[in-house]
Amino acid sequence: MSDTLGVAVVGYSFMGQAHSNAWRNVNAFYADLPQVRMQTLVGRDRDRVGAAAEQLGWADVATDWREVLERDDVDIVDVCTPGHLHAEVALAALAAGKHVLVEKPLANTVADCERLVEAARAPGAGRSMLGHNYRRVPALALARDLIERGRVGQVRQARLSYLQDWLADDQAPMSWRLRKDTAGTGVLGDLGSHAVDQLRFLLGEEVTRASGHLRTFVTERPSADGDHREEVDVDDAAWATLHTSSGAVASLEVSRMATGRKNALQIEVYGSAGSLRFDLERLNELVVTGAAGGAETVLVTEPEHPYVGAWWPAGHVLGWDSTFTSQAADFLRAIATGDDLHPSFADGLAVQRVLEAIETSSGRGGIPVEIPA
Amino acid sequence: MSDTLGVAVVGYSFMGQAHSNAWRNVNAFYADLPQVRMQTLVGRDRDRVGAAAEQLGWADVATDWREVLERDDVDIVDVCTPGHLHAEVALAALAAGKHVLVEKPLANTVADCERLVEAARAPGAGRSMLGHNYRRVPALALARDLIERGRVGQVRQARLSYLQDWLADDQAPMSWRLRKDTAGTGVLGDLGSHAVDQLRFLLGEEVTRASGHLRTFVTERPSADGDHREEVDVDDAAWATLHTSSGAVASLEVSRMATGRKNALQIEVYGSAGSLRFDLERLNELVVTGAAGGAETVLVTEPEHPYVGAWWPAGHVLGWDSTFTSQAADFLRAIATGDDLHPSFADGLAVQRVLEAIETSSGRGGIPVEIPA
Amino acid sequence: MSDTLGVAVVGYSFMGQAHSNAWRNVNAFYADLPQVRMQTLVGRDRDRVGAAAEQLGWADVATDWREVLERDDVDIVDVCTPGHLHAEVALAALAAGKHVLVEKPLANTVADCERLVEAARAPGAGRSMLGHNYRRVPALALARDLIERGRVGQVRQARLSYLQDWLADDQAPMSWRLRKDTAGTGVLGDLGSHAVDQLRFLLGEEVTRASGHLRTFVTERPSADGDHREEVDVDDAAWATLHTSSGAVASLEVSRMATGRKNALQIEVYGSAGSLRFDLERLNELVVTGAAGGAETVLVTEPEHPYVGAWWPAGHVLGWDSTFTSQAADFLRAIATGDDLHPSFADGLAVQRVLEAIETSSGRGGIPVEIPA
Amino acid sequence: MSDTLGVAVVGYSFMGQAHSNAWRNVNAFYADLPQVRMQTLVGRDRDRVGAAAEQLGWADVATDWREVLERDDVDIVDVCTPGHLHAEVALAALAAGKHVLVEKPLANTVADCERLVEAARAPGAGRSMLGHNYRRVPALALARDLIERGRVGQVRQARLSYLQDWLADDQAPMSWRLRKDTAGTGVLGDLGSHAVDQLRFLLGEEVTRASGHLRTFVTERPSADGDHREEVDVDDAAWATLHTSSGAVASLEVSRMATGRKNALQIEVYGSAGSLRFDLERLNELVVTGAAGGAETVLVTEPEHPYVGAWWPAGHVLGWDSTFTSQAADFLRAIATGDDLHPSFADGLAVQRVLEAIETSSGRGGIPVEIPA
Repeated sequence: MSDTLGVAVVGYSFMGQAHSNAWRNVNAFYADLPQVRMQTLVGRDRDRVGAAAEQLGWADVATDWREVLERDDVDIVDVCTPGHLHAEVALAALAAGKHVLVEKPLANTVADCERLVEAARAPGAGRSMLGHNYRRVPALALARDLIERGRVGQVRQARLSYLQDWLADDQAPMSWRLRKDTAGTGVLGDLGSHAVDQLRFLLGEEVTRASGHLRTFVTERPSADGDHREEVDVDDAAWATLHTSSGAVASLEVSRMATGRKNALQIEVYGSAGSLRFDLERLNELVVTGAAGGAETVLVTEPEHPYVGAWWPAGHVLGWDSTFTSQAADFLRAIATGDDLHPSFADGLAVQRVLEAIETSSGRGGIPVEIPA
Repeated sequence: MSDTLGVAVVGYSFMGQAHSNAWRNVNAFYADLPQVRMQTLVGRDRDRVGAAAEQLGWADVATDWREVLERDDVDIVDVCTPGHLHAEVALAALAAGKHVLVEKPLANTVADCERLVEAARAPGAGRSMLGHNYRRVPALALARDLIERGRVGQVRQARLSYLQDWLADDQAPMSWRLRKDTAGTGVLGDLGSHAVDQLRFLLGEEVTRASGHLRTFVTERPSADGDHREEVDVDDAAWATLHTSSGAVASLEVSRMATGRKNALQIEVYGSAGSLRFDLERLNELVVTGAAGGAETVLVTEPEHPYVGAWWPAGHVLGWDSTFTSQAADFLRAIATGDDLHPSFADGLAVQRVLEAIETSSGRGGIPVEIPA
Repeated sequence: MSDTLGVAVVGYSFMGQAHSNAWRNVNAFYADLPQVRMQTLVGRDRDRVGAAAEQLGWADVATDWREVLERDDVDIVDVCTPGHLHAEVALAALAAGKHVLVEKPLANTVADCERLVEAARAPGAGRSMLGHNYRRVPALALARDLIERGRVGQVRQARLSYLQDWLADDQAPMSWRLRKDTAGTGVLGDLGSHAVDQLRFLLGEEVTRASGHLRTFVTERPSADGDHREEVDVDDAAWATLHTSSGAVASLEVSRMATGRKNALQIEVYGSAGSLRFDLERLNELVVTGAAGGAETVLVTEPEHPYVGAWWPAGHVLGWDSTFTSQAADFLRAIATGDDLHPSFADGLAVQRVLEAIETSSGRGGIPVEIPA
Repeated sequence: MSDTLGVAVVGYSFMGQAHSNAWRNVNAFYADLPQVRMQTLVGRDRDRVGAAAEQLGWADVATDWREVLERDDVDIVDVCTPGHLHAEVALAALAAGKHVLVEKPLANTVADCERLVEAARAPGAGRSMLGHNYRRVPALALARDLIERGRVGQVRQARLSYLQDWLADDQAPMSWRLRKDTAGTGVLGDLGSHAVDQLRFLLGEEVTRASGHLRTFVTERPSADGDHREEVDVDDAAWATLHTSSGAVASLEVSRMATGRKNALQIEVYGSAGSLRFDLERLNELVVTGAAGGAETVLVTEPEHPYVGAWWPAGHVLGWDSTFTSQAADFLRAIATGDDLHPSFADGLAVQRVLEAIETSSGRGGIPVEIPA
């Protein structure tokens, strides 16, 4: 209908808001990209989605995502629903020829992920991308660049943890995130997926073997209405040892019970010639060491750092939300140029296979599980 | 013309962009405020302001700020020009009955500031506000709350420094910021104004006496075109000792030559019962101590922290740009409610008086200068 | 022979020096303890042990540790030999009725540890103690106190890592530490033993189950003389997941290949009501959090902190060597009073069982191994 | 009397203990130096000095420092009395031909310092040295090396602060340190002297001009016995701006009221090509930056770092007390070799002149005071 790209976001809670913010701002920071139109916000409750759309800046709303797929003024479908609905919406959107961005996780099962990968490769499908926003943290993009350029030498060990504490209180109430049928897994899928994605992203390698342990510390919680107690059937914390294709070993620890940790995705990569460290609570910093000498804390806010040039002059820290805007920019650029993008649905499938291997291993008492290429 | 407020921003470089970003996002984060319309972006060069307006999301442009003042679809005039033009634009905007937001510094001279304060109080003037965005850093707003609630007891000492290094290289070229006739002063006005504003904001007190030293380390720099060398007639660094109305003493040190410091506004407040520390390079953190015990690093990203509730769930760090959005929200709220706001033009005048006293003291070899109430 | 206690240290390299330093200083810092006499330093090479004794302050030397056991002027035998000789010397010293301090590890095998535990309990044996000096780091002793007093609530997760990088260079030469027959294991015994001891010390619990992975990244190294290459048959890095008697889970990661880490024993303990964090590279600090609020960095140098009162006024940081002096003080006090001490030989046996379980698990591909009580 | 050097320490409280510890350990860490004998501890109260001598390891005691000067078995007199007695003891010791180490400050007045400098140069005087122990912090010695080798380029700015909080409580009792007649000044002499010494040490320059402010926040305190209140006539906090011979500017802030700071001697040096930062609370670390890039935190515990080679293998942190031991070693080496040493009494005089200029300036309302070369 025009030379702009119409966007529809499906879902308007936390992730829907973060993605709306990205679409609202992407053209203001990233020049020379297709212009986007914030066309439609999709949600089941007309009143609430209407209020959200007005606040977030959407032109109109829809209560049925299927009808949106038929509209000509929607070019990009951005799936921000809970994970168990990702596959259905994304498959239909691909079939309708839309460009599709899916918030992580790609889907809750390997089987669904495989169907999505296949659909994304089908003739006539639009571009497809998975929304692992932390790939657009400048410090982590810089980390990947440094590893690729050999700054740390041959990677031997990686340490990945993602620690939060919002479930540390055993009276914190039940939610859909604590039920297997809606969430698939607990913290493993929620936070572990970020860690595994980063491992693959930073090292550019596959995970070939995993052994894991899952643990539920608080097995019953008050229901949301406080009336009764409900069983928690997903993991509160998870540990894994991962082996990669090059022979590196990574440890993984994720928890929503780590009192005092708010949003601590911590990554350490140790190579033969240097190392890197990152903590999401200090999103703008990367610590770099060489084979000798001290640990250099780089404030990743210089114009020459990845993504930073699009934002503010040197020295001005970026927030968490900037990563979604930069992600949207990368997606738009790939749509315009036809170039490769990442993470692809195939990346999402690879992550899901690792998570499933960890879960399988845990079920078998920790015996390592091989992950097919 | 409608129940929304039309905004015009005058200036489209660094600050114009930061303010544009604020107007683009304020209603998405802060509900229950008047809706804003990004009406007009004002700049002298039609092509460039036109391109900027398109990128930043403005409806139209103007090349003469005077004509904007006559338009009915502009309710708020937001002055983001270089400092020596602030007074003229803001005075005219006030006279035209507009609400006026002026990016700091209020003006380059005390005399201009006084005129602005007077104009802001004139009958028929709209609401007026000074843009010291760091008052909207959640950690600093929290610091003020804590001081007000007595968490640190009687404040005795404050340490304020604002250190950058973009002039450390003596081959960095000349710019308007390094000429007295355009910039007024060097780092004192540019960074020192932030520090003095924070001192007054955090302590809720006036500075009554100042002694200061200004220094230019690099007295000649290459011209922008590299052709010749030009004289630098403003300060590269400044130091001051400030006394407040309650008897506290504050040290001030600002520099654009502090190699390795990128944007380090560092504030420490020591009271009889506790202390607070802040560093803008870690914008989301505040360090709090009591009379005994250790130093508590608070990640100021919880919903109960100032401003944070409008943004993301707990644990998600905000960026530098968020402070302008929150500032716009506070201004809109004051317009809607008629309530007090801060910083007022009177605050800007008070800051300017302190800066001028520091400069005067420096000119007299460091002899303390009293500052009239 | 007198009312002082004569000490003999067996071994005069790194640990012999650290222990000599402790005996030289213990009475100067800790009053009201038995006076010690630095009687004899024992080593096989008369010239070198003589030179060491003179420098370190010993009254005389011996080249055969057996003859020392027959001397009346030696009351305490302090075993600082390589690990595979610990058992023989310590057993003989106990049989001779001496008080015995054994530097960690207690011995290289569970079987040897069991014999030592038995001997320590035999009638007529002197007091016996294991030298895990990090139990005397004030910050870690404080951590234990805080856990015991319920400051962190029920412990759920612990994270322990000990990372160094002196083997990251694949041209670093062979040494006895890299051969199984002298060192038993590689980093697992060397650094892992510290971590496991701390886990048991801090939580006051037993490890009941372990799964582990060992890895040798550099399998050949230059011989010490550079002539040829030798095989490395011990681990460069190790990972484990440990389960404790109360149901807590601990992750363990140790490495001598972690480029950029010099001596990073890092410990994190997460409980239902708070958490603790420690890093040996900042030996004087402990980070404490509650169920809410920030992370309090305590400079553990106040007189009320464990051990600190014996040293300097508040605020003066202690060095690594102080831990050996405090350890000697605790041993002397136990000798004088007859009170319980820790770590006992039984503690050393318990640690060795955990290490052996990790190794066994690794040999079986990571299958968890139960650890008998 | 022998080929060892007999030492007498005058004073046995805090500094006497720190120096005793140094003499007890110096030969154990530093080989190839003259052997010392801990001969005599001097104090006025025979019982108390006797108990101290026994605990600290001294061979005998004396109650009159004058008689010690006549003894042949005392070669080194180490003056650890309160500052107002330094001059008398040291002058007599020099006249007696002893080597003299004086704990800082050299003396409480410039006049006394001048007499000491003169006496130290007199024919027949032994070697003389001032005890500014922080010159032997490895990180600060490394900082000096780096500056000397041009690592930070031309130094332009230095920031020095020394903040403690043991007087923040206004009910903390009176002591000799809070009376002008015994202490000379308050925090300025006590902590400011360290900062000024470091400035001169690190930059290798003289301070040529000073402006200062002194402040007493708590003007009355309970007497030691709690009976009555006494007047405090020394400063609680002090601020100064210092100009150096090369044109650098240094800011100085010292306080014993800085709640939450325990022993924070913080030093920052900014040059044209890099910068350095140090905090005594993290004694083993130095932060180094270049003209570009991040801030490298160096753990100053490698064998190639100053002083470290005498201590433990790489990665083992040193304590505050190690600085006195290294200081004693440097003194012994200078005695043996006849080489130059630092800080000399002339250094102490230079520091005292700066302190006096700050005080004078404060008395004149902050007017800068020139300091004669």
